[in-house]
Amino acid sequence: MARSSGSGWTYASSGVDRGAITSALGALLAGIRYRAPRTAGRLLPARGHFAGLVRVGAETLALTTDTVGTKVALAEAVGRFEEVGQDIVGVNVNDLAAVGARPVGLLDTIVCRDVDTAILRSLGRGIDRGLRQAGCHLLGGETAVVGDQVAGWDLGGTAVGYFPKGRRPILGRALRPGDHLIGLPSSGFHANGYTLVRRLVTERGVDLRAPRPGGRTAVARELLRPTRIYASVVDRVADEPTLHGLAHLSGGGVRNLVRLHDARAFVLDRWPRPPGLFGWIRELGGLDDREMFQTFNMGIGFVLAVARGTAEAWIGRLERAGARDARVIGRVTRGSGVTIPDRHLAFEGYS
Amino acid sequence: MARSSGSGWTYASSGVDRGAITSALGALLAGIRYRAPRTAGRLLPARGHFAGLVRVGAETLALTTDTVGTKVALAEAVGRFEEVGQDIVGVNVNDLAAVGARPVGLLDTIVCRDVDTAILRSLGRGIDRGLRQAGCHLLGGETAVVGDQVAGWDLGGTAVGYFPKGRRPILGRALRPGDHLIGLPSSGFHANGYTLVRRLVTERGVDLRAPRPGGRTAVARELLRPTRIYASVVDRVADEPTLHGLAHLSGGGVRNLVRLHDARAFVLDRWPRPPGLFGWIRELGGLDDREMFQTFNMGIGFVLAVARGTAEAWIGRLERAGARDARVIGRVTRGSGVTIPDRHLAFEGYS
Repeated sequence: MARSSGSGWTYASSGVDRGAITSALGALLAGIRYRAPRTAGRLLPARGHFAGLVRVGAETLALTTDTVGTKVALAEAVGRFEEVGQDIVGVNVNDLAAVGARPVGLLDTIVCRDVDTAILRSLGRGIDRGLRQAGCHLLGGETAVVGDQVAGWDLGGTAVGYFPKGRRPILGRALRPGDHLIGLPSSGFHANGYTLVRRLVTERGVDLRAPRPGGRTAVARELLRPTRIYASVVDRVADEPTLHGLAHLSGGGVRNLVRLHDARAFVLDRWPRPPGLFGWIRELGGLDDREMFQTFNMGIGFVLAVARGTAEAWIGRLERAGARDARVIGRVTRGSGVTIPDRHLAFEGYS
Repeated sequence: MARSSGSGWTYASSGVDRGAITSALGALLAGIRYRAPRTAGRLLPARGHFAGLVRVGAETLALTTDTVGTKVALAEAVGRFEEVGQDIVGVNVNDLAAVGARPVGLLDTIVCRDVDTAILRSLGRGIDRGLRQAGCHLLGGETAVVGDQVAGWDLGGTAVGYFPKGRRPILGRALRPGDHLIGLPSSGFHANGYTLVRRLVTERGVDLRAPRPGGRTAVARELLRPTRIYASVVDRVADEPTLHGLAHLSGGGVRNLVRLHDARAFVLDRWPRPPGLFGWIRELGGLDDREMFQTFNMGIGFVLAVARGTAEAWIGRLERAGARDARVIGRVTRGSGVTIPDRHLAFEGYS
């Protein structure tokens, strides 16, 4: 809302204050003290990780829930909902992939002002595309029509994953100094940073129907591009013992790497040049590197940490698994936090 | 919004048109054609039932997602959120109970306009109460701050259940003519019918801080009373082979029974006199019996269908399991639909 000091925008000044949210969530979680008996299943420790883990009978389940956030407001402004429908699947199954789980399926939650058959049809098509790419089921859904509470649409979901026989959750405990960090490119902003993006677009009077300088398609189309789904590729390689850690770079950008280990440092010394879309938004908002890397995925949406000396083999393995664009982006060292040496950036902590 | 013909309100005229929602949902589901491979788990047929079922490895999971709906607007008007926090758990685990699953846990989805620590603290306390009553874990959650899309708060969740060794899903296939229907009382409106309730309360200028005629506590407190949680009681009796079917009477009221079987009729010939709260809202809106029974739970929130001749044994069993107020409310016969003979009501179909 308010402009931050100087000419630069920050994600906090755009109306999203991650620190305030984290502290308020502390109040929510402080009230939840009950510990259920073992007969209800056994929670596995995965503090701060991308998905919750619970042992139920003979299986370990991974569970995650996330929404598409304010990208939906852009979809509504433009009148296109297929992309955000796909995002419902993407934002959730990518978090399952980040613990090495195979997606079983998704339950969608659509909260809307009123019943709009055309929008629901588009959402259905988008969800279908997402499920197809993730190779999982639609397990259920809820469409809540609550015109008194919402002005627009809110789209979210919950995904369920499991670990095929012999596979264990990949939580980063195996990370070692010397491990390589391999990045998988993103398709754009995915579903993060849109509160800031939308505010900049409005404030600067950007024409959503025209391409940005250097862009090939209308800004609206570029901004709506659906989240790349990494779940199938990751599932094909997740049994490999040289895979030490996984991270989904969603809200918080490169800070998500910190969630893997608090006694390892992530040195991103081979980060590729981000696609033009990122430079454009950076210019538009006068954003600095620090803000860019902790708000957006900066061109890399998913990271695999693999054993020292296996980088080349992994690039080939990922290509065979369906990701031809994997590349080494850095390495693991002793220490903590994330550094990007050539940008003189250092991040400690996730939020 | 618009008043229906004559002096009576209907749920449709209050702004909720179940038929329109069902048809729009058809458009959503029409787009979802993908069938995932068996490696992602195997969907079990449970069409129209309260929860989705999927076989994952050695376990069968039950999954359901639901929101508290417009009851949240009442919570916001009154400034009390603990009850609706508990409702997030209740509306979901009761749907798991309706297939005989034991709850593993809940993932909450809180969509809000802004970060309010006091509200989140109350929600946490309410969720804790719900988990305690249901005997299950908090498995995850998402708090989305999307001030541009929502005017208030939307509260929902997804629940995961499983079937302990030897137990199979209870889907009503075992229902036989002659079975008894046993009802478990509700605690009030639970989380259904609030669009209508709130509109009536506003239109008729009801003072939420005063008791209704015959009421003992402020109307607001009575309306906010949290959903009774049936999951623990049902879990304690769900292995009993004379249990033939289960139904959670949420949105749609007694019509929910139709979901159990399309070639059985449910004759509710011993329905107890509904508590005064139901009579009061009926008077307030000039609602007819038909509308009341397909909108509200009318005093019975959960139904068990049990084998002929076992009613008395079941009343005792349920008492030992924690439900001292179970009572026979009707019986299963040949045919289809739901009838309430002494009110001259007949319902065919769920929606």
